[in-house]
Amino acid sequence: MMPTNEQLLASFESHLAQLDVPIEPERLYAPLIYSMSGGGKRLRPMLLLLACGLYADDVRAALPAATAVEVFHNFTLLHDDIMDNALVRRGKPSVYAKWGANVAILSGDAMMICAYRLLRHTPEALLPRVMDIFSKMAAEVCEGQQYDMDFEHRPKVSVVDYMHMIELKTSVLLAGSAAIGAVIGGASEEDVRKLYRFAVELGLAFQLQDDLLDSFGAEEELGKRIGGDILEGKQTYLMVTAMSRADEEQRDVLRTTYKDATLSDDEKIARVKELYRALDVERLTEQQISVRFERALGILDTLSVPADRTTHLREFAKGLMGRKK
Amino acid sequence: MMPTNEQLLASFESHLAQLDVPIEPERLYAPLIYSMSGGGKRLRPMLLLLACGLYADDVRAALPAATAVEVFHNFTLLHDDIMDNALVRRGKPSVYAKWGANVAILSGDAMMICAYRLLRHTPEALLPRVMDIFSKMAAEVCEGQQYDMDFEHRPKVSVVDYMHMIELKTSVLLAGSAAIGAVIGGASEEDVRKLYRFAVELGLAFQLQDDLLDSFGAEEELGKRIGGDILEGKQTYLMVTAMSRADEEQRDVLRTTYKDATLSDDEKIARVKELYRALDVERLTEQQISVRFERALGILDTLSVPADRTTHLREFAKGLMGRKK
Repeated sequence: MMPTNEQLLASFESHLAQLDVPIEPERLYAPLIYSMSGGGKRLRPMLLLLACGLYADDVRAALPAATAVEVFHNFTLLHDDIMDNALVRRGKPSVYAKWGANVAILSGDAMMICAYRLLRHTPEALLPRVMDIFSKMAAEVCEGQQYDMDFEHRPKVSVVDYMHMIELKTSVLLAGSAAIGAVIGGASEEDVRKLYRFAVELGLAFQLQDDLLDSFGAEEELGKRIGGDILEGKQTYLMVTAMSRADEEQRDVLRTTYKDATLSDDEKIARVKELYRALDVERLTEQQISVRFERALGILDTLSVPADRTTHLREFAKGLMGRKK
Repeated sequence: MMPTNEQLLASFESHLAQLDVPIEPERLYAPLIYSMSGGGKRLRPMLLLLACGLYADDVRAALPAATAVEVFHNFTLLHDDIMDNALVRRGKPSVYAKWGANVAILSGDAMMICAYRLLRHTPEALLPRVMDIFSKMAAEVCEGQQYDMDFEHRPKVSVVDYMHMIELKTSVLLAGSAAIGAVIGGASEEDVRKLYRFAVELGLAFQLQDDLLDSFGAEEELGKRIGGDILEGKQTYLMVTAMSRADEEQRDVLRTTYKDATLSDDEKIARVKELYRALDVERLTEQQISVRFERALGILDTLSVPADRTTHLREFAKGLMGRKK
């Protein structure tokens, strides 16, 4: 019997709760506990366990690796929050805000090491392969973050450049998780590659949906203010798509509105969203999300497992995309 | 034929020169190249290769791990320089000074990942064991750095606390390197443990010598100003020893001189050194260095290898301690 997604999440949380974290030095390890108990959606470990579950009825061998990808993900948040000067994370003060930059740097380092320590408890025969996938993924996540920071200083970012950046920054960690799960479950090389691609496409759809909701979501359902990306002048799929379709005058508005001191926040948001609508950006983004999502699901049809084994993974993928405007 | 230390260093440098580092994103990887080509003494990889060479004539299998410990060491420097606000490293601008904190954080992260990628090329049968030693060592180095930062805000640091901190911050990386080299060379568990202890003692002697030279060295030979630690009010072996022997009045002088705005730098240095002399701190430090160093060499006598095989390692250890006042 394949476990349900709720059962998988429960076994992950109970494995995580047993994580053996030293007590001292307190300022090194308390932020790790704080960050890991902040909840979050556990997307990466769930994807890892679900991919493993396609091939193995018992996914316990994948729990250390599942914990490793979640710890690694939280490490990236600690360091990203310093670089982005982000004071809030999941509705609570970020580690950076609560303890300062030095603690966030060093605790983050300890978390990355912790992730590798966990990973090492992967069955030994699979360890070299799993380490390769993990380290390649980890390096690419850093590359994505660097491109994201580089984009802040670039006058024009193409849609292709943007997609490449979010593939590295967001998708690769999901894709590596899926691939590691598949390897531990005993998948063929070909299925491992397919599940990697599946998660790349799913991750792109997920990030684009995130971009879309930030400008066109409903505040009550999202639990945050709409328009944050616009006010920060952030490069998003909406912005780079709009820039690629705008005329010179519109581009100028898109480029400068966020820093126009004569406008209120609401006026800035309204002005940019008006242009997004004029340039058909909302519909184009929805279309791209749908293309990516369908492509992801299509890949699942080609796996060498009975179709009914993919039910839980499909359910998970749909849950991811079900966030309402 | 065992290679000479010069030959070992040359094979390490030529292996390092072949390190395959991506070109883009430039701000992520250029600091890695910059940092790794900054020279340094390559103590950790040398120790790793020398420990391996005690048991194996061909140390090539240890080259990836030797590179891994050097990359890891340089990663710690990148992040430490941010936390310590250090603008100069090996006589050149630090990565932090040259590119800023964000680049130093993220490049540092990429370097740690690079270290694990290198480590993975250790012979597969030994990989789990080598990863355990490496990750434990890496975590302890972070713990040492955290204690070091914690000490800045503590009114009194005991000699025992100080020794524990430098064991973690400095010795453990040398000790882990020696242990990894021994494992790859095929040493027994017992010899691995002994070489670990050897390098812990050597590392302590090395750090204490560093502390001593900073206050009592000769500027021309050290190539830096004497008294930097005193002016920063840093906890060093000299300071914690002096504090443990001082009366209330002397303690007050030791605690406050560095921040006394009425004194010139030279006066501050002279005042603290006068107390160090009065409290016999220079001699006590020399004694401790000598105890630790002799203990390290003594351990080498107990290894299960012919005595003449340890010649190169002894030579290396003596070279480390030979830095003149």
